[in-house]
Amino acid sequence: MEASVKEYSHTYFLTAGECDPESRLPMPLIVSRLIEVATEHANSWGVGYARLKEDGQAWVLSRVSVEMMRYPHVNDEYTITTWVESYNRHFSERNFCITDGSGEAIGYARSVWMVIDSRERVLCDISKLGYISSNVSDRRSPMTQAERLQPVTEGSCNPYTFGYIDTDSNRHVNSVSYIKILMNQLPLEFYDTHRFVRLDIAYLKECLFGETVTIRLDHRTPLEISAEIESDGAARCRARMTFADCDYREEFA
Amino acid sequence: MEASVKEYSHTYFLTAGECDPESRLPMPLIVSRLIEVATEHANSWGVGYARLKEDGQAWVLSRVSVEMMRYPHVNDEYTITTWVESYNRHFSERNFCITDGSGEAIGYARSVWMVIDSRERVLCDISKLGYISSNVSDRRSPMTQAERLQPVTEGSCNPYTFGYIDTDSNRHVNSVSYIKILMNQLPLEFYDTHRFVRLDIAYLKECLFGETVTIRLDHRTPLEISAEIESDGAARCRARMTFADCDYREEFA
Repeated sequence: MEASVKEYSHTYFLTAGECDPESRLPMPLIVSRLIEVATEHANSWGVGYARLKEDGQAWVLSRVSVEMMRYPHVNDEYTITTWVESYNRHFSERNFCITDGSGEAIGYARSVWMVIDSRERVLCDISKLGYISSNVSDRRSPMTQAERLQPVTEGSCNPYTFGYIDTDSNRHVNSVSYIKILMNQLPLEFYDTHRFVRLDIAYLKECLFGETVTIRLDHRTPLEISAEIESDGAARCRARMTFADCDYREEFA
Repeated sequence: MEASVKEYSHTYFLTAGECDPESRLPMPLIVSRLIEVATEHANSWGVGYARLKEDGQAWVLSRVSVEMMRYPHVNDEYTITTWVESYNRHFSERNFCITDGSGEAIGYARSVWMVIDSRERVLCDISKLGYISSNVSDRRSPMTQAERLQPVTEGSCNPYTFGYIDTDSNRHVNSVSYIKILMNQLPLEFYDTHRFVRLDIAYLKECLFGETVTIRLDHRTPLEISAEIESDGAARCRARMTFADCDYREEFA
């Protein structure tokens, strides 16, 4: 009973229309699913959107890291399991395990969240939220923590202006849109010959509809790219994308 | 028993992260869900991706129309029900009903599909597919058919170059990406004061990664926009987007 409250799982089926051109589960959809299962887990405690809105509180995603050892392929089932691993006054750490149809772990994710008082626009004290303190799990993720993401000053790409479809119900740019825009700076041929093994992203300041941003991608090594999205002289997000050599035609053969 | 085979339903929960800035179910996500339930229905007949791949056949979306009388709001449940209403040698018509949490119809959709032999790149004869002929439903959609979508020669917008995230496992641009790009030509303020009541889109010729397209939006009336995406002198898709005056702050108040 305890475990079923402190952990939450959702099983998905990967359709062809959802896949990336290499017929894998795409990284933006993984992050979208992580946010979805986090929401469903909170809903299962009775602290869903309606209750939070009443309390004037909103959970804000601060950092996400995803590490994939292996990807679900088109027509595969996969399951995402989540639990809250720790919290302090300002941050709560929610972690994830991604398993394949046979229950084997194929990936892990870490996420760090803050709670803001949406009326006062100040941080709330997470240690005072009873539904967090009573639902912290003993489970420990084997995934390494993200290193601190440094500023990126080299490697400017074309600017990008956020449009209507990049914005969500918070009235600012969706967390997943930043990942899509960074991934879109690399050509199809790169993804055909590489597998995305780890993403680390930190959200620093929100972007708004119509805002034009500078994108920088610094290829530190052939397999590691540091990235930053900046606007009005302020970094909005920083990321590190780590790849492995892999020909997609052989990966699922 | 008959009904359960000839009709298929999937219930979804609308999370905050999936919503548009007006806290509604976004049109691109509706179309994505339609394709998903169509796939799941075919899978339930045993003619999923694996079997089609073996047969060298692929279902290709030719036209979609969506009419929404009312939208699911953040935190709402909604159900999509689908059935095959008719077919001939070249086209099959799969229709949909979208219901709210209480089972009331809040929207309808129509879709037209072709089957191509992916090795020969020719159209297959749908009337020879036993799983279609034996699963046609007697149910009739109350939604009006789409009118023929005419060429659009006025109203050029900025060109757009399709990137990695616009492409899917078919190795060409995703059906939903065209809708996103058309919707992205209108500002946030327009969506804040209008409700998208009907979309008609016809897919004419696929676009590929890296292709730069011309986008034309012709505002025929303040509430009706005809659109076309063109590249290399050939129309790739045509659409009609119909709106109603509606202030989102009052819609769900």
